[in-house]
Amino acid sequence: MPKALITTVPFGDKNRLPLELLEAAGIEYLINPLGRKLKEDELAEMVTDFDVLIAGTEPITDKVMGRASQLKLISRVGIGLDSVDLLAAERRGIQVSYTPDAPAPAVAELTVGFMLTLLRSVHVANAQMHRGEWHRHFGRRIPEVTIGIIGTGRIGGRVLRRLAGFGTPRILVNDIHPDQTIAPELKLEWVGKEEIYRHADVISLHVPLTVHTKNMIRREHLLQMKPDAIIINTSRGGVINEHDLAEVLNAGHLSGAAIDVFEQEPYAGELAQIDRCLLTSHMGSMSVDCRTRMEIEATEEAVRLLTGQALQGLVPPEEYEVQRQGL
Amino acid sequence: MPKALITTVPFGDKNRLPLELLEAAGIEYLINPLGRKLKEDELAEMVTDFDVLIAGTEPITDKVMGRASQLKLISRVGIGLDSVDLLAAERRGIQVSYTPDAPAPAVAELTVGFMLTLLRSVHVANAQMHRGEWHRHFGRRIPEVTIGIIGTGRIGGRVLRRLAGFGTPRILVNDIHPDQTIAPELKLEWVGKEEIYRHADVISLHVPLTVHTKNMIRREHLLQMKPDAIIINTSRGGVINEHDLAEVLNAGHLSGAAIDVFEQEPYAGELAQIDRCLLTSHMGSMSVDCRTRMEIEATEEAVRLLTGQALQGLVPPEEYEVQRQGL
Repeated sequence: MPKALITTVPFGDKNRLPLELLEAAGIEYLINPLGRKLKEDELAEMVTDFDVLIAGTEPITDKVMGRASQLKLISRVGIGLDSVDLLAAERRGIQVSYTPDAPAPAVAELTVGFMLTLLRSVHVANAQMHRGEWHRHFGRRIPEVTIGIIGTGRIGGRVLRRLAGFGTPRILVNDIHPDQTIAPELKLEWVGKEEIYRHADVISLHVPLTVHTKNMIRREHLLQMKPDAIIINTSRGGVINEHDLAEVLNAGHLSGAAIDVFEQEPYAGELAQIDRCLLTSHMGSMSVDCRTRMEIEATEEAVRLLTGQALQGLVPPEEYEVQRQGL
Repeated sequence: MPKALITTVPFGDKNRLPLELLEAAGIEYLINPLGRKLKEDELAEMVTDFDVLIAGTEPITDKVMGRASQLKLISRVGIGLDSVDLLAAERRGIQVSYTPDAPAPAVAELTVGFMLTLLRSVHVANAQMHRGEWHRHFGRRIPEVTIGIIGTGRIGGRVLRRLAGFGTPRILVNDIHPDQTIAPELKLEWVGKEEIYRHADVISLHVPLTVHTKNMIRREHLLQMKPDAIIINTSRGGVINEHDLAEVLNAGHLSGAAIDVFEQEPYAGELAQIDRCLLTSHMGSMSVDCRTRMEIEATEEAVRLLTGQALQGLVPPEEYEVQRQGL
């Protein structure tokens, strides 16, 4: 009987369909019994005799694959591939699939919510009210500010289209592959990243974690930003250097930050001491509909492999190329 | 020298222009020295020899006007008239003006931000993260839910138009004067309030405080709502009964609430004990641009009166009619 290890949690929680798909196909499965993101050694120990990994963001390294002698497919629930050693998988003949479109609408909505919250200091006022303090905070509206989006792919593009309903802010955009057609209803200015750091009031990151984006935003970049700028990261931990961000916020620079992703998750670091830093627990994709779609797509891919059908969600060669450059 | 009493605070804080308008017109002014919303007696004592009141939401009662023998104009910074006894003003020959359009964009944006925050439990996750707890909350996206808007005037209409960019939720709307043209890009279902209570996932209130809306939403209405519904009030305190809301939330009903306005402000009540109740400090209109526009418009009206020009922002007869019915 083929066996699937499901490492991402929660799984099948709001909608049992992915589990039913496995059951109907006669696939035995185990859901990560630790109930949290696995560390490399834990995964290496757990993975031994499984045919398929239905995976979250835990480290799927060469060492892990070395222990997984039966492994034929890594089916990522989500889009990021920074946690998967694609080159090791390639060498070992393990295929890798993902669900790149499914999480995007949920991440985009969360991001717009972060913008509206930070621009009005809602998170700060809420904390104060719950402590019995009444302070009326001035804020800014979307059409009053300059928005800077770094990464205008699946998620960044959706953020832009949702902003269109709020009036017309000035929008600066940056991407390694500029796509002039992403938001025809908006007037976008394609600029370099430095220009965004210097001129945007709201800076939001929608890039994968690669050798080029790891620690992309450090102390020196944060200090280039306007004193009352806002920075949002719903992409991957490590794109902004967390320690530098905490230091800069503690020094009084930037009016706020919203961080959903962390270098190490669960996060328990110094940003939690800072009221104007809005923190969430890697919830970008966690809308019921998007999460369900991600789980179903990743499970369907596992079923395809184990029932001898052609795979449909294989990671494209460009992603291998990115890793060949050195992450 | 004509004299203006400015009771709303902060005033002229982000933009000095309103104060400069008064100075240029040779009008002496005093800004509320207590720095918070005045009580009736405090205002009555302060108001004695002023010609114009540039007013916030403090109670401008018959008693207050009785002490204001010079008063010729109440110029409200904002839209709500629940705090002004219009009939007493009429009897005493005091004119009343307001700035009904200026705050609407800021209130609408805050409201959409509340929807996105509550649907994803961002406020709960943020509080937990700041306590060192990591819980990944499932949420819902706008296109997944049924939105219910009670009051589709200046603010409710703007909320609807901003939602259009998020995809197409089911939208139930209610207004005493339904306007079929408010959001042609959306398919609106005009229904009774009870239908909204029973079927909407997100309920947002955009009504004035009148004899008809005071305590409009009480325990029995809250209990009619879905167990995981969300309720938002950025209109006026008192439209939802605060005590009933706290009781119902404490009993585990409703998945969240966002409240910006309170029966008594500054607020220090029992809702502050409830994590999933997002609280802000009457900040709906507090974007720099809208607040500045409100202050300028209300000041210009004061200058018009004191320099013998025709008033432009007079409160229309319908508002007097509403109060004649009994608030």
